[in-house]
Amino acid sequence: MGILAVGSVALDSVKTPFGDVEEVLGGSATYFSTAASYFTGVAVVAVVGEDFPQQHLLALQNLGVDTLGIERKAGKTFRWKGEYGYDLNNARTLDTQLNVFADFSPRLSPEQRRQEFLFLGNIDPDLQRVVLEQMERPRLVACDTMNYWIEHKRPSLRSTLERVDILLINDAETRQLAREPNLCKAARTILSWGPKTLVIKRGEYGALMIDGKSAFGVPAYPLEEVIDPTGAGDSFAGGFLGYLAAARSGERSAMRRAVVFGSVMASFNVSEFGPRRLASLTYPEIESRFREFRELTHFEDL
Amino acid sequence: MGILAVGSVALDSVKTPFGDVEEVLGGSATYFSTAASYFTGVAVVAVVGEDFPQQHLLALQNLGVDTLGIERKAGKTFRWKGEYGYDLNNARTLDTQLNVFADFSPRLSPEQRRQEFLFLGNIDPDLQRVVLEQMERPRLVACDTMNYWIEHKRPSLRSTLERVDILLINDAETRQLAREPNLCKAARTILSWGPKTLVIKRGEYGALMIDGKSAFGVPAYPLEEVIDPTGAGDSFAGGFLGYLAAARSGERSAMRRAVVFGSVMASFNVSEFGPRRLASLTYPEIESRFREFRELTHFEDL
Repeated sequence: MGILAVGSVALDSVKTPFGDVEEVLGGSATYFSTAASYFTGVAVVAVVGEDFPQQHLLALQNLGVDTLGIERKAGKTFRWKGEYGYDLNNARTLDTQLNVFADFSPRLSPEQRRQEFLFLGNIDPDLQRVVLEQMERPRLVACDTMNYWIEHKRPSLRSTLERVDILLINDAETRQLAREPNLCKAARTILSWGPKTLVIKRGEYGALMIDGKSAFGVPAYPLEEVIDPTGAGDSFAGGFLGYLAAARSGERSAMRRAVVFGSVMASFNVSEFGPRRLASLTYPEIESRFREFRELTHFEDL
Repeated sequence: MGILAVGSVALDSVKTPFGDVEEVLGGSATYFSTAASYFTGVAVVAVVGEDFPQQHLLALQNLGVDTLGIERKAGKTFRWKGEYGYDLNNARTLDTQLNVFADFSPRLSPEQRRQEFLFLGNIDPDLQRVVLEQMERPRLVACDTMNYWIEHKRPSLRSTLERVDILLINDAETRQLAREPNLCKAARTILSWGPKTLVIKRGEYGALMIDGKSAFGVPAYPLEEVIDPTGAGDSFAGGFLGYLAAARSGERSAMRRAVVFGSVMASFNVSEFGPRRLASLTYPEIESRFREFRELTHFEDL
């Protein structure tokens, strides 16, 4: 058994200082499942419109992703249009068209309900709970969220968090969610609401994992070419949860390696537009970058 | 033989969301030498005014800092007044009074000229070279700078950099100096100008050391109480160069540990106003935090 991933499958138009693309395959479930596919089986639950190119589904299937749960509905596919400046840490959303995603209400098949690992992509926390309630006995639940839900759906998000093991979130969202400027205090507050572990994504600065006992930090891979940061967070989540599902361990050493594998997948993803680079990796390339991360961070004890 | 540190000794007034202090001991040479004093001998070259409290000199002497090179001149001591908001990464300068510092022209004694390690604090790059030209044969030269000199004294700064082994600089300054938004490319550009190693300080995100061959990154120590970031960069430099001078090694493993000791000293420094915490440490506390850094960053190889 592998991972069930619920989120968006979208068509993205992105402009960065290094170029632009129109209507490429995007969405949280896309980036997540593409990254996770190198580690374990992933089934996606999402919705697309009649206009969604069949080739995109085939691309996911070629990676071994189970796309049976990607429902095709009358109407248009979710579209997102965004722009990044030289500060690639923050996207400026130019346009969001929810289209068929507006009425998305995930219905899981019996097989999907039995998956052991669940990733709740960045969707309405009400929907995240609709999924949670259909699961039989997930061994591990990870979820993502964003500033919009923190601002407009706080009580619902709090309810979701009560049932989540790992929250993946960026640092600004951590502070916003806890209403606390100090990141460590903010993390402690959020941990008291349910999640056992917080994985804080910090873009070009790396990631920080905090649980009740300890903290683990890893810098981002220093890249000379960052072309398009879209999907970095979901690629991270895919590498992270993918490795955990494959390792079948929630032990400290596995959790730490999972953060590194998340960082590895995010570092590949940002080096080309869309999920192109992420979709064309080999496992040896992934292992090799993992070792580079060790090289990047290792120092000897006293 | 130890370190010669040239920079400012000042009276700082600082306001943060957690309180404020008036005219406390400050300046780049103060923070640097206080941090370095735990590792090796440090002699300071600086200038103060008639109003400079004798107790501050005694405080430095109590740490073993050689203050013979702190000249007392007619006039008032350099004063800096700054403020931080909840985003403690950036200071807002409210007032700068150079006073006696305006005519600072360091003259080294024969003993000072023979020091093996030199730290050129954040002063006019012309003055940094005045110091460099008086040194006999320094084994290692490290220097700091800031946006003001990058903007107003670029050619002079470039001349200084030709003669520097290690440049300690923050990430915004790295980009500004190289006129390149990508940090890795910016680092490569600066390395082509002279320094063999760049140590990029990233505030709450940690530090990144880049040389011609490899990169080393370490996250900042996660702190629940950051009270006053003033002097964090100079404390870092003091721990970094202090350890290198004590280890008497420029090897890769020593350089990496030096970055961690720099991070250790900065983490202590920001937990109280002024250099108060930094000045009251014990070496076992420093070693213990070094081990916590290992705990924070260590993960097992594949």
